[in-house]
Amino acid sequence: MKIVSTINEVREQVKEWKKEGNTIGFVPTMGYLHEGHASLIDAARKNNGKVVVSIFVNPIQFGPNEDLDSYPRDLEHDAKLCEEHGVDLIFHPTPEEMYGDNFYTFVDMDVLTKELCGLSRPVHFRGVCTVVSKLFNIVTPDNAYFGQKDAQQLAIIKRMVKDLNMPLSIHGCPIIREEDGLAKSSRNTYLSPEERKAALVLSRSVFLGEKMVKEGERDCKKVIAAMTEEIEKEPLAKIDYVKIVDLSTMQQIDTIEHGILAAMAVYIGKTRLIDNFMIED
Amino acid sequence: MKIVSTINEVREQVKEWKKEGNTIGFVPTMGYLHEGHASLIDAARKNNGKVVVSIFVNPIQFGPNEDLDSYPRDLEHDAKLCEEHGVDLIFHPTPEEMYGDNFYTFVDMDVLTKELCGLSRPVHFRGVCTVVSKLFNIVTPDNAYFGQKDAQQLAIIKRMVKDLNMPLSIHGCPIIREEDGLAKSSRNTYLSPEERKAALVLSRSVFLGEKMVKEGERDCKKVIAAMTEEIEKEPLAKIDYVKIVDLSTMQQIDTIEHGILAAMAVYIGKTRLIDNFMIED
Repeated sequence: MKIVSTINEVREQVKEWKKEGNTIGFVPTMGYLHEGHASLIDAARKNNGKVVVSIFVNPIQFGPNEDLDSYPRDLEHDAKLCEEHGVDLIFHPTPEEMYGDNFYTFVDMDVLTKELCGLSRPVHFRGVCTVVSKLFNIVTPDNAYFGQKDAQQLAIIKRMVKDLNMPLSIHGCPIIREEDGLAKSSRNTYLSPEERKAALVLSRSVFLGEKMVKEGERDCKKVIAAMTEEIEKEPLAKIDYVKIVDLSTMQQIDTIEHGILAAMAVYIGKTRLIDNFMIED
Repeated sequence: MKIVSTINEVREQVKEWKKEGNTIGFVPTMGYLHEGHASLIDAARKNNGKVVVSIFVNPIQFGPNEDLDSYPRDLEHDAKLCEEHGVDLIFHPTPEEMYGDNFYTFVDMDVLTKELCGLSRPVHFRGVCTVVSKLFNIVTPDNAYFGQKDAQQLAIIKRMVKDLNMPLSIHGCPIIREEDGLAKSSRNTYLSPEERKAALVLSRSVFLGEKMVKEGERDCKKVIAAMTEEIEKEPLAKIDYVKIVDLSTMQQIDTIEHGILAAMAVYIGKTRLIDNFMIED
């Protein structure tokens, strides 16, 4: 496994691999890798000749009062996990390599970015779309893998690739959870032992809502009320949002008919966590 | 020469050509081709295995009161010119093929888009960046060719490619003029015989300014005043702007030191024409 930090090194290696007839599978990450990322890498490993993982805490997707500086980093641990899961190349650039002195261009989106996390994190998805566009142009993968834990991000990336005719396929992979249900997240490391226990309200609420819908409930208000009530039992939890949206537009709906995403963002102490369930068309 | 209208047909043809070891040269146009476009095609022909020309009047780069509907179109004439200049493939999609029913994504830029034509045409460059991104992803060229007549567009495209790490090279080609000096433009067809004569104030003003700078004038105000005075001699001309900007940022400057662009947009009757001269670093 190679670890490189410059765009040129990635381009040259990928060019060589493509010349040999390999397809390229790509997993973009912000590092501090866990079993969720590992499942994306495994999916990439299974279906591509070569696997590239990027590790880059992208400054432009963080708002001014968010956790850019404190976001956890551990390249040594990440490299070990990548090695164990058969990654061929880690791309680990500096912010300077990615954005230089003057950076003016951005990729953004209407509609899908205006709900859910886009409301409380107004610059977030513009930063995500821009960095992912850059990474796709640098790595030129055939396939790229994203977790369904960031369900809105996945929907936005799929839409961006479709709208801009980017020449690759996007694959969503299921949420990976701890044994007790908490969705795996690099941000779980922020939680104190007490908060770690409190954080279980997210998955409990998700499982409850999913059960209601699977058993036939079609009224979004009722599902959301039950999910909200579950979260509000926990004094350390503060809801940012609990919503049910159309899976293709991310717009709120009243009645469940086609594909839906039921998503939440909840503060546990100072840590903002997300979780969701999806019912596809 | 092939003429195709679907994205899939372009992708399949280009894939085949690349497999045979060809480089792809690309000239994106809005059609109604003239000798200016032909010079871009010739440049592409000289340096690439295969040459692709797109002909697409891009609706999203026109403002609500601009000339989208009246923009001149003549595919038969365009195909003849392309054939004569050795084009291998014309991509001539419908707006539906390019934008479908729901289109949410856009590529935009700060700073460079805020001056000159960006002031009077606020959605223009967002539409240009978005369609050019799409076309690059569809055609996947090694080289793309743009005219220096649209100098701000050229600077913006170069910057977009750099910022987003798009894997191709951008080439700017000199302005092609009529014998009497008028810069070639598809919009010249809008001019009445009287307006056609009046339109010569643009090139006269450009030649005057260029001469002043080449002879040593460094005060932008003096150059602009002389250029403006020349245009104001013509009663049919109404100035949108005459400005001198830094070539890399498109920001107005007072003193000529590094690379500059002196650019103008002038209405001749109802027709908005542009012209410029550039002094590179």
